[in-house]
Amino acid sequence: MSSPLSANFLQAIPVDQIRYNEQGLVPAIVQDYLDGTVLMMAWMNAESLQKTLETGQTWFWSRSRSQFWHKGETSGHLQHVRSIRYDCDSDALLIGVEQIGDIACHTGERSCFHQVDGMVNAPPADTLSQVFEVICDRRDNPTLESYTCKLLAGGDNKILKKIGEEAAEVVMACKDDDPDAIASEVADLLYHTLVAIAHHNVDLRSVYRKLQERR
Amino acid sequence: MSSPLSANFLQAIPVDQIRYNEQGLVPAIVQDYLDGTVLMMAWMNAESLQKTLETGQTWFWSRSRSQFWHKGETSGHLQHVRSIRYDCDSDALLIGVEQIGDIACHTGERSCFHQVDGMVNAPPADTLSQVFEVICDRRDNPTLESYTCKLLAGGDNKILKKIGEEAAEVVMACKDDDPDAIASEVADLLYHTLVAIAHHNVDLRSVYRKLQERR
Repeated sequence: MSSPLSANFLQAIPVDQIRYNEQGLVPAIVQDYLDGTVLMMAWMNAESLQKTLETGQTWFWSRSRSQFWHKGETSGHLQHVRSIRYDCDSDALLIGVEQIGDIACHTGERSCFHQVDGMVNAPPADTLSQVFEVICDRRDNPTLESYTCKLLAGGDNKILKKIGEEAAEVVMACKDDDPDAIASEVADLLYHTLVAIAHHNVDLRSVYRKLQERR
Repeated sequence: MSSPLSANFLQAIPVDQIRYNEQGLVPAIVQDYLDGTVLMMAWMNAESLQKTLETGQTWFWSRSRSQFWHKGETSGHLQHVRSIRYDCDSDALLIGVEQIGDIACHTGERSCFHQVDGMVNAPPADTLSQVFEVICDRRDNPTLESYTCKLLAGGDNKILKKIGEEAAEVVMACKDDDPDAIASEVADLLYHTLVAIAHHNVDLRSVYRKLQERR
């Protein structure tokens, strides 16, 4: 699959106006286009940026090997470019990608930014995905005290009843036009909806894909 | 407000094991902790990283001025640090922040990465926030053909009826245990819920805050 957007990229990014450093390089931050997780940071020169724009896949410049690096060429973990932006002083790039295989790091982790004092700890970037990850962890490693585990143990009849209740509470909060109550009740509805999809082994990313398709 | 996590940061990031470049600097990517938007990229040396860890606010090294730069000191747009991670080869930092004023760029834009061929174009990072931004734009700039605009024109009675319907459709899809239908119906429920909060001028970020508080 090549990116249908690559023709637009070519016009949108002025390769010759990017400010490369003394080695002719610019940092490129690579971000998951669905949940905003920063997957990696690598370096591009003007030619690898040009290749990225032309192919719709990421090409970097390897400083250690002094050669082009077509991300995923060996591993299959290609990055299909969905968006490219540059910053206010034109010396850094931000690239939104669909990460094939959902693994960007050579260690096999999803993101290169997984280290906190040697421990692997790389939650996804957005709040909803973070909450969903906690719910899936409770599903896979149940504990006695957890409300989420009790819900999941009750199965569809317990979980789906809560969705009906929380939807009704959103309706009432809106009818009362109470902003704080609306935010709280919507948070409750989102949480219980995430429990339902976790229970059915549906990934939040597949919901995000549906939403992206409709935009 | 100083970050309650700063004591943990001090232990979690091995300042002396980060790989600084030949100028003694490491790139620091700064990301909104609620929706994953990359706000800016700047440079830290070991001392500014240490100051960041100790204060729970971001401190950079300004290469142009050769001096420390306490982000927001002049503008008030401080960044309270919520998480710090480093990448697999320890030569880049990723910092999750609460951005005071929701403005990180000196231009007044939320994110420094707002340029596509000179046009301002910086959607938030995660799918739900992107959809919400489109809905708010429809609310503020209505068009005749838009389904979202028709919903909003119908007010609470039209919008909230849809939330009830979509919640029931999530329930039915779960009862059928149909993964594709579950993803679709959850996408519908999320979309209509976002329309409801947009109608009531509630920000999705306040919903995210409620979810983060409960974690």
